Amino acid sequence: MSPPETEDTPLCGRNPVLELLRARSRRVEEVAILSEGRSPALQDLLGLARGLGVKVSYRTRDQLTAIAGTPHHQGVVARVAGANYASLDELLAIPGERGEPAFFLALDQIQDPRNLGAILRSAEATGAHGAIVPKHHAAGVTAAAAKSAMGAVEYLPVARETNLVQTIEILKRDGVWIVGAVVKGGQAPWQIDLSGPICLVLGGEGPGVRPLVAKNCDFLTTIPMRGRIGSLNVSAAGAVLCYEVERQRLAKQAKLS
Amino acid sequence: MSPPETEDTPLCGRNPVLELLRARSRRVEEVAILSEGRSPALQDLLGLARGLGVKVSYRTRDQLTAIAGTPHHQGVVARVAGANYASLDELLAIPGERGEPAFFLALDQIQDPRNLGAILRSAEATGAHGAIVPKHHAAGVTAAAAKSAMGAVEYLPVARETNLVQTIEILKRDGVWIVGAVVKGGQAPWQIDLSGPICLVLGGEGPGVRPLVAKNCDFLTTIPMRGRIGSLNVSAAGAVLCYEVERQRLAKQAKLS
Repeated sequence: MSPPETEDTPLCGRNPVLELLRARSRRVEEVAILSEGRSPALQDLLGLARGLGVKVSYRTRDQLTAIAGTPHHQGVVARVAGANYASLDELLAIPGERGEPAFFLALDQIQDPRNLGAILRSAEATGAHGAIVPKHHAAGVTAAAAKSAMGAVEYLPVARETNLVQTIEILKRDGVWIVGAVVKGGQAPWQIDLSGPICLVLGGEGPGVRPLVAKNCDFLTTIPMRGRIGSLNVSAAGAVLCYEVERQRLAKQAKLS
Repeated sequence: MSPPETEDTPLCGRNPVLELLRARSRRVEEVAILSEGRSPALQDLLGLARGLGVKVSYRTRDQLTAIAGTPHHQGVVARVAGANYASLDELLAIPGERGEPAFFLALDQIQDPRNLGAILRSAEATGAHGAIVPKHHAAGVTAAAAKSAMGAVEYLPVARETNLVQTIEILKRDGVWIVGAVVKGGQAPWQIDLSGPICLVLGGEGPGVRPLVAKNCDFLTTIPMRGRIGSLNVSAAGAVLCYEVERQRLAKQAKLS
């Protein structure tokens, strides 16, 4: 197992920083707050940071903008030790620990960190056990992704793998069924049994899942398009598929109980 | 019926402009294209614009950036006559014309035009008949919304209304059931019959549907959250709800046929 990779990244905005603190992440090194006109909206956050023993500093607007790398920081920036990526082995152990059928997402070449973050948020909301992202040619768990994930990256382990086809083979050997989302020719998600151990494979914004990856899937699913536009935004597609998994799993639980 | 309101807005990016032209929108006044190094990727778009008799002009990168208001124009900007908002009466006539149970969305104070655009894209993809947005305190169908909607605004009529509660009353009198999305306390979307005539009401990014609006809904729905994050992004929530409508309608059709 290789050591986790880290990168120093700032995270800004009231809700993202609040979620980060609530997750009791050990990665928060400092919370920097606007000194001029301390906002009452930041009191909760400030109390929480102090309660957790996180270093708090007061800065000017320009200093915050410099730390955040953007003026849209809402008066608060957290310095974070960067994403701790998990290993694939760690991910594979989680379904057993929770006593649940596996639910993973593999994200094939998603470029926009906001889309990545939004998908991680939907995945976390539906009880996914982890996500797999490629090491190259794809957005990583950067500050922009973390902000858009609204704290979900603190709870949902993410593994970075070099070769997605090999990763799929490992998942298959572990009894996980691979369900690839394709723009055309797949079954509607509600026509596939998603209540067993599965890994959803989502492709990048433009090209979708690459042909070699699609070839290695056990099932292909296509979200029906009734209108005249050709495809959904990948984060919308991710939300729809995650919630179809959730709907089917809740229905199965209700039937069993 | 008041005359449709318009505003001149540029639309940029290869796919959004291509979708705009494919929709044969009469609103396209001009397509401006980067003159240096004419990209082969723009050939389709150029051919289509010429075929439709749309004025094409060649500009420098700086001129395009000035027209687009952003450097992220991918070498193509369309000048568009702005959104043509529909009237509520026009919206209400559509389900009858199509012989389908009504499917509307009312968007209560969505602030981010990208979220608005993404929701309109999901709505169009699931055969919605129209969307209602407030005249004030909300994102309108701006260039940013149109870009994020990837052409959906060309096909999905949008009405702007001053008072959402009054609009809901009019919809109710027309036999439409109002389903409001709330963060807590509603039924799961799959526990509500969404196959009849409905209007989904989605609230803004932070506060959700306002209490007075929620009080006027026939049903309240809450998307279940299994993880530790409190809520979904509003565009993810919109996609999930639109596709639950679609799933139920397809299941009903399959049963009837």
